[in-house]
Amino acid sequence: MQLQLSTWPEIEAYLAKSKAILIPIGSTEQHGPNGLLGTDALCPEIIARRAGDESGILVAPTFNVGQAQHHMSFPGTITLRPSTMIASMVDWAQSLVRHGFERLYWFNGHGGNIATINAAFSEIYHGVTFDKSRAERSNHAPLRCCLRNWWELPGVGDLTHQLFPVGEGSHATPSEVSITQFGYPEAVKSVAMTPRIAPNGPILDADDYRRRFPDGRIGSDPSQANIAAGEKIVAAAVKAVISEFRQFSAS
Amino acid sequence: MQLQLSTWPEIEAYLAKSKAILIPIGSTEQHGPNGLLGTDALCPEIIARRAGDESGILVAPTFNVGQAQHHMSFPGTITLRPSTMIASMVDWAQSLVRHGFERLYWFNGHGGNIATINAAFSEIYHGVTFDKSRAERSNHAPLRCCLRNWWELPGVGDLTHQLFPVGEGSHATPSEVSITQFGYPEAVKSVAMTPRIAPNGPILDADDYRRRFPDGRIGSDPSQANIAAGEKIVAAAVKAVISEFRQFSAS
Amino acid sequence: MQLQLSTWPEIEAYLAKSKAILIPIGSTEQHGPNGLLGTDALCPEIIARRAGDESGILVAPTFNVGQAQHHMSFPGTITLRPSTMIASMVDWAQSLVRHGFERLYWFNGHGGNIATINAAFSEIYHGVTFDKSRAERSNHAPLRCCLRNWWELPGVGDLTHQLFPVGEGSHATPSEVSITQFGYPEAVKSVAMTPRIAPNGPILDADDYRRRFPDGRIGSDPSQANIAAGEKIVAAAVKAVISEFRQFSAS
Amino acid sequence: MQLQLSTWPEIEAYLAKSKAILIPIGSTEQHGPNGLLGTDALCPEIIARRAGDESGILVAPTFNVGQAQHHMSFPGTITLRPSTMIASMVDWAQSLVRHGFERLYWFNGHGGNIATINAAFSEIYHGVTFDKSRAERSNHAPLRCCLRNWWELPGVGDLTHQLFPVGEGSHATPSEVSITQFGYPEAVKSVAMTPRIAPNGPILDADDYRRRFPDGRIGSDPSQANIAAGEKIVAAAVKAVISEFRQFSAS
Amino acid sequence: MQLQLSTWPEIEAYLAKSKAILIPIGSTEQHGPNGLLGTDALCPEIIARRAGDESGILVAPTFNVGQAQHHMSFPGTITLRPSTMIASMVDWAQSLVRHGFERLYWFNGHGGNIATINAAFSEIYHGVTFDKSRAERSNHAPLRCCLRNWWELPGVGDLTHQLFPVGEGSHATPSEVSITQFGYPEAVKSVAMTPRIAPNGPILDADDYRRRFPDGRIGSDPSQANIAAGEKIVAAAVKAVISEFRQFSAS
Amino acid sequence: MQLQLSTWPEIEAYLAKSKAILIPIGSTEQHGPNGLLGTDALCPEIIARRAGDESGILVAPTFNVGQAQHHMSFPGTITLRPSTMIASMVDWAQSLVRHGFERLYWFNGHGGNIATINAAFSEIYHGVTFDKSRAERSNHAPLRCCLRNWWELPGVGDLTHQLFPVGEGSHATPSEVSITQFGYPEAVKSVAMTPRIAPNGPILDADDYRRRFPDGRIGSDPSQANIAAGEKIVAAAVKAVISEFRQFSAS
Repeated sequence: MQLQLSTWPEIEAYLAKSKAILIPIGSTEQHGPNGLLGTDALCPEIIARRAGDESGILVAPTFNVGQAQHHMSFPGTITLRPSTMIASMVDWAQSLVRHGFERLYWFNGHGGNIATINAAFSEIYHGVTFDKSRAERSNHAPLRCCLRNWWELPGVGDLTHQLFPVGEGSHATPSEVSITQFGYPEAVKSVAMTPRIAPNGPILDADDYRRRFPDGRIGSDPSQANIAAGEKIVAAAVKAVISEFRQFSAS
Repeated sequence: MQLQLSTWPEIEAYLAKSKAILIPIGSTEQHGPNGLLGTDALCPEIIARRAGDESGILVAPTFNVGQAQHHMSFPGTITLRPSTMIASMVDWAQSLVRHGFERLYWFNGHGGNIATINAAFSEIYHGVTFDKSRAERSNHAPLRCCLRNWWELPGVGDLTHQLFPVGEGSHATPSEVSITQFGYPEAVKSVAMTPRIAPNGPILDADDYRRRFPDGRIGSDPSQANIAAGEKIVAAAVKAVISEFRQFSAS
Repeated sequence: MQLQLSTWPEIEAYLAKSKAILIPIGSTEQHGPNGLLGTDALCPEIIARRAGDESGILVAPTFNVGQAQHHMSFPGTITLRPSTMIASMVDWAQSLVRHGFERLYWFNGHGGNIATINAAFSEIYHGVTFDKSRAERSNHAPLRCCLRNWWELPGVGDLTHQLFPVGEGSHATPSEVSITQFGYPEAVKSVAMTPRIAPNGPILDADDYRRRFPDGRIGSDPSQANIAAGEKIVAAAVKAVISEFRQFSAS
Repeated sequence: MQLQLSTWPEIEAYLAKSKAILIPIGSTEQHGPNGLLGTDALCPEIIARRAGDESGILVAPTFNVGQAQHHMSFPGTITLRPSTMIASMVDWAQSLVRHGFERLYWFNGHGGNIATINAAFSEIYHGVTFDKSRAERSNHAPLRCCLRNWWELPGVGDLTHQLFPVGEGSHATPSEVSITQFGYPEAVKSVAMTPRIAPNGPILDADDYRRRFPDGRIGSDPSQANIAAGEKIVAAAVKAVISEFRQFSAS
Repeated sequence: MQLQLSTWPEIEAYLAKSKAILIPIGSTEQHGPNGLLGTDALCPEIIARRAGDESGILVAPTFNVGQAQHHMSFPGTITLRPSTMIASMVDWAQSLVRHGFERLYWFNGHGGNIATINAAFSEIYHGVTFDKSRAERSNHAPLRCCLRNWWELPGVGDLTHQLFPVGEGSHATPSEVSITQFGYPEAVKSVAMTPRIAPNGPILDADDYRRRFPDGRIGSDPSQANIAAGEKIVAAAVKAVISEFRQFSAS
Repeated sequence: MQLQLSTWPEIEAYLAKSKAILIPIGSTEQHGPNGLLGTDALCPEIIARRAGDESGILVAPTFNVGQAQHHMSFPGTITLRPSTMIASMVDWAQSLVRHGFERLYWFNGHGGNIATINAAFSEIYHGVTFDKSRAERSNHAPLRCCLRNWWELPGVGDLTHQLFPVGEGSHATPSEVSITQFGYPEAVKSVAMTPRIAPNGPILDADDYRRRFPDGRIGSDPSQANIAAGEKIVAAAVKAVISEFRQFSAS
């Protein structure tokens, strides 16, 4: 069930039986020679929408631009300042809480978002804490935020390791490229890359990043990506996210 | 050409021939009994992606949550504060300008966004003006922002008037519902509405809105919406936006 | 009745019979060769104070610096960032609401302010919506904000068209210059202008503006301005604003 | 010379001979039973405009709403948050500096503004310092901000002490009320007050203020105010401010 | 009693008998050739901790970086923007108020902080005022903030004048250097200075400051500083602050 | 070498040979029945100052209040909003960069700070990236920020595991309490705790935290803490931090 493809009476009906919503959150940033700029937003979106179709989980629109400052030396990357991202997430959360949602499951596709997402959670809880304090009300519905990266879902790591024992790397990985190839077969790119496995190293500012990682990849060989692998990863992730979301909803 | 489905080298190549980009911008808000919560984001996205496929216009990810404060009494609506929306648009613009884009065409699907988008343009230009002032540089690439609402594209208004001479209204219109029905036929809803044509009136705060417009529509009869009409409107809009974007690119 | 020329007990007495206040809002920006930098603040102020004298409408101090980024290439222009203007308007509104005002009539003299004023209204209502949500109180006094541009008051457009059938234009118009000449006859300027009617064109950033409109005018011939015309426009506007404000107060 | 009554070519000409401008800055807040809500904005405005007429000093529009949180329990008071006031003053200063102004003389009418004005000066200088640091330019025109309270001008304190040896007090003083009576004789109020001299005490938050000072005055007997006294104070202040502004301009 | 050396149950017990807390607040900025960069934070900290030990006053951690923009041309200085400092002080105050504190005694070591601290008080009270207004609750605990500079404590000025009749000056004074020498005898510096007494003058921006005051001192001769003098000043200040804090707690 | 106990000429001399500085960063928050509220600020401060004394590393003042929203239900906790913490860290970094520092080693004592610190790094780099972009300068000194938690220094984890094989837990650990007991033996508390080992669980908002962890501890038995253990941990950490800081300085 996608919020953007639902009507408000349908959401009203959903809220009568569940207070939980899944929000795909990603980034728009370079993903090497054959990875899509939308990879980090598309991966959680692809998984989440299938999970929503299968199980009735309510899926919000995708928070599609995140924290990508370190990729800014590659054309096409779009980034929010962390302070802007926090303000936006606070607004999304406040809106959902206003309607009665109490469990916000942020389903993330970008490692670089993790810090800012967690900072935003503290800012969201801060508002709740001080609001409650002021009004001395005890009956305020408890709000919980949960962050889950798709690659950390139970079973997914084992699968990607098995599919790509060498060259998974940490940015522009064959796994994430495979997912987008499965989701968007019309956008599969065939690009030669040298070296086959990209170098590793620390992530600092944007200029340094491009010096260390000239084609954008970190430690990965995404030329291994393929649609069949993407299909398997998505299937595993869909199953896992449905299970975990249900537990979170009931918490 | 969709930015999210492109690689960074593809964007680098695009920038060698064009400095212009189209950014669909909408809202996530109630659209009456049979309109989708995503209507205002989906309409410009549907039109823009087709225009991008036909003509090679570069289409950014959709700015999918906007200014919807007045719809907050209907479940599912998500809104940014205007100040947050301005900060986000400034960040998007700064990122694109950093890569060399000089013509930002914001393709809008929500009347309630217009004021804040224009305020954001002033904030974006403000940064350029004062930056230039400080550095006294004369060679800064000129930046231009353009706002276009899809329903104001040449030819589109005449067509929607012809398709829906009665009951177009101003919110949850049969035209916009038709576009989403054409784009997402799997999400066509069949819902009875009373009265057939919704009341008109001013838009004030969220509570007042729901009192005046109990099912969310303003002046419209979206039960007339149909896929065929959506197809016609999209075709007209695609043609018009390609033409206008080319002029803007060359300005 | 001017707030700044009243005592607090007088405002307390006023509030016992009315919850409405008129706030003149303008800009400090170039108005061509013979127009005053204060034109856009002075026009609504001149009209409003006369309306206040005649009818007892309460008139707030003038919000005299607004959104004038695009005029920044002309000396003397002062501008707020849109985000600052929103914050300021929120503070003015919160202060007035604290005292019991429920109808804020913003009487505007500058087209360039419209977008930011409307964005500010959404920010103001946002605060009300989420505050009410948190406290689940139903008895909060409803707040309404209204924006009215003086040149759109009933009867005023017809009059200015009749007075200046040619060369009214859209910036540094003979109508607004006439109003300030009527209000400040000691500041009437006699300046030759070439061409008689200024060029038209779009408004982009500050540098572009000065290139297109070298003396600051857009499409206008303000050499036609005269005190008698100003007197007529003011008379018509005063009558119209009193009538409209009364309706708004009673809404 | 008033900026709002000048044209941009007149300001351009002024800048060719002076880089200094005077900005009246005040507050809109209760001033006891017979003092005007606009007193703190009107006093510096009345003095400054006369000084401008006599000497050609350029006078900006009045920054008319300031820091009045502690007066918020009296109807009619309008206040900015200090952080909003700082942002606004930064915008005014940036605009003026953009045109070439280098000496900003803020002429203040409200003791409660002093802290925030000085904080704003640090914020303004902060921008200059870090901008200069980044660009390593050495030729940036030096910017100086000066704060002057009208009651501290040379000669003014002695005069007010002589005119009102008893009951000058510190808020709603006979001196400031006299100035506004001189400036706006049509707005002289005749109100009985008890006790004749208001109590003294510390200024804390808004509620506490009203408990301590029920009619708004602190330590003053403004029933002594009269137009003749206002005329004398204004004359002394005009003379002093012209002299001091000239020194500041030449610094 | 130091908060940072206490456990939460100890603070809970303290709150059962007192609602007051002392917060040392200073700056990290150059203090001339022999003064420590931490002087303005260390002085109130040294005095406050001794006062806490003697009397049981609860002493918060030191707010150790403040408003030092004008010292930024000297290495080692760290400054907050005034707007950041206000936001931080609001957060500290909100946290303490949440636990039940009602009397916040800010014990200051830096003249340059005074304006911003007072602006922050208004911002803190602003929150209380508008919160109370919204909820129309009358039983909110009253909050009071107090600012005290250590050098203005009763008896301290007389003592420093007696100890250093010549060359006390206003920045990098022998008194403050003596206090840090007493507190940190291991960090006493022996440095020759020329001229013996530094020049006086106004404080403007950072570059101007360094031009006027090349070694950082203003009007002072801190070569007179000595541990014995520091001990005397601290003793006098400890006694005075205990007395004043008790009065404030009981207010 | 402590910055706060140094003079500006000493920092100038230091900068001639090193561009690196260590900034202890912690939190002020409850640490269970016998842990100090200052624990998370004191631990990195104790280690850093010893490292500075031994090796000449320059140690900044301690950033002593951080992100502690989830501890707000325990008296004495002070927290910043994440957005305030980011703004403050940006200001600290900008100040240090202004003086020529290029390597900022943030030495952290609080797990709850990690997300916000990393978000702040992105905000700091964002400023550098866009500033560089605007000026197209290539010679800007590279800035690097590094985050190190003391408990993750090489060798420290093994040691604490050996010292406290059972009941180390994750909040109010015997290791951190031991460090503060070693640093502040006068503040050792003797408190009985039940159960001996505190429960484990997730960290959500402040109220939930107190319900799950009634005395504040998570999974720990800090009654094992002792001065001798603290001394050993500090010795190991001092050695490790000196080594790592040197590598970072040279990077």
